Amino acid sequence: MKNTLKIIKIGGNIIDDGEALSAFLKDFATIKSPKILVHGGGKLATGLARELQVEVNMVDGRRVTDQETLDIIIMVYAGKINKNIVAQLQANWCDCVGFTGADGNTIVSTRRPVQEVDYGFVGNVKQVHTKTLELLLANNVTPIFCAVTHDGNGQLLNTNADTIAAELAIAFTSFYAVELYYCSEKNGVLKNVDDDDSVIEHINTQSYKNLLETGVITNGMLPKLDNCLHALNKNVQTVCIGKTSMLFNKKSKHTTVVI
Amino acid sequence: MKNTLKIIKIGGNIIDDGEALSAFLKDFATIKSPKILVHGGGKLATGLARELQVEVNMVDGRRVTDQETLDIIIMVYAGKINKNIVAQLQANWCDCVGFTGADGNTIVSTRRPVQEVDYGFVGNVKQVHTKTLELLLANNVTPIFCAVTHDGNGQLLNTNADTIAAELAIAFTSFYAVELYYCSEKNGVLKNVDDDDSVIEHINTQSYKNLLETGVITNGMLPKLDNCLHALNKNVQTVCIGKTSMLFNKKSKHTTVVI
Repeated sequence: MKNTLKIIKIGGNIIDDGEALSAFLKDFATIKSPKILVHGGGKLATGLARELQVEVNMVDGRRVTDQETLDIIIMVYAGKINKNIVAQLQANWCDCVGFTGADGNTIVSTRRPVQEVDYGFVGNVKQVHTKTLELLLANNVTPIFCAVTHDGNGQLLNTNADTIAAELAIAFTSFYAVELYYCSEKNGVLKNVDDDDSVIEHINTQSYKNLLETGVITNGMLPKLDNCLHALNKNVQTVCIGKTSMLFNKKSKHTTVVI
Repeated sequence: MKNTLKIIKIGGNIIDDGEALSAFLKDFATIKSPKILVHGGGKLATGLARELQVEVNMVDGRRVTDQETLDIIIMVYAGKINKNIVAQLQANWCDCVGFTGADGNTIVSTRRPVQEVDYGFVGNVKQVHTKTLELLLANNVTPIFCAVTHDGNGQLLNTNADTIAAELAIAFTSFYAVELYYCSEKNGVLKNVDDDDSVIEHINTQSYKNLLETGVITNGMLPKLDNCLHALNKNVQTVCIGKTSMLFNKKSKHTTVVI
């Protein structure tokens, strides 16, 4: 039987809240199985862009990334957020190393082709190389990923953190029984977006189609669920969406996605 | 006989010049022996501080680091500079991972005690843990260090890059024959600071004292040479100061420091 690897993605609701982040990292450090943390960027990048008078340009919730915006993303995601997480985890006796996809050549992307929108320096994940990550995991060192990858030719690329988590999960299925957790500010996928108790506890391919048709799943959740189903189709064992409490309390309500 | 490990420190003169940096990284990637790169910050952090209207406060050439300045340093050193170096090296087929001292708990510092000056979030190196670095080196992965360490309690600290290079060099003497290279914009320690041909090719403890007494070694070079002699006293095999060409061309003039 394969060992379990937990891949946990956290987003802005935790990253932007210093106390919530510290509390989460303290809990995260207690997870005994091999684990990888993937974090998004939160509001800090937008804040720095404003301070530097760099225009923030979003299309369908995705950031258009020109050179100046890319620099900000690298500084905030790979610098400020990633290294503060690493330092806090070390203080909690969780040995870890911060990663972009360039480090260890772990995640190679191609710049997203220009169709209706030119997203600029945004990457679509092409390949994941697990060698260096395996080496660290086998030695009890936890990789901490920010949402930056590279193209293999020297160019860093802004990359969706949900996708990074899914692609890492898929790449490790040969070695581990992989569990993928998307932590959000909600208890999971909700029947009624205003009612945090209306969690849909199980979603499968068929019910997903129904939820799409009936408009329960809205634009914000759509790419995340696509990532979930993609991961499950590629042998990831479990995908869960919910608050971070789902990781530490079995009774905590959340959505489990199955195929 | 121990294998050779080269520890190479580059400073602002290379980091601030995109073409010089690319050319250096291309050469660096060809070095066959295990190697570690340590880079300073250059002018980028000062530039960002100005843009963000954060006051830059230097005492004796050292940056006073308040919280805002520390954030800038982490963003620029560990983010922008470090990750661009990593991406460029990957493009040159040099597999590498970016490090602060918090990553892998590699370099633990204590905040510099307040004497005449409170330098703020500045660290004096206390301990180096080589475990994760050895693991990577043994697997042909090159660590790339920026000038940031941590205190083990969650606090990142701005730390002198020359010192980081020296302390890494010392820590690896148990496993490797360590060569330490300080790359500068000059050909080495100069008899006449305005004449790049006046290189002092060898300095030892005795001649160092003479050079100090006669005023040839000035304030800028003093801490660097202290680091050199400290490293040599702790079993580092060779310490050289000069232009990056000393690494790739045996005829390139430079200063070798011996004890």
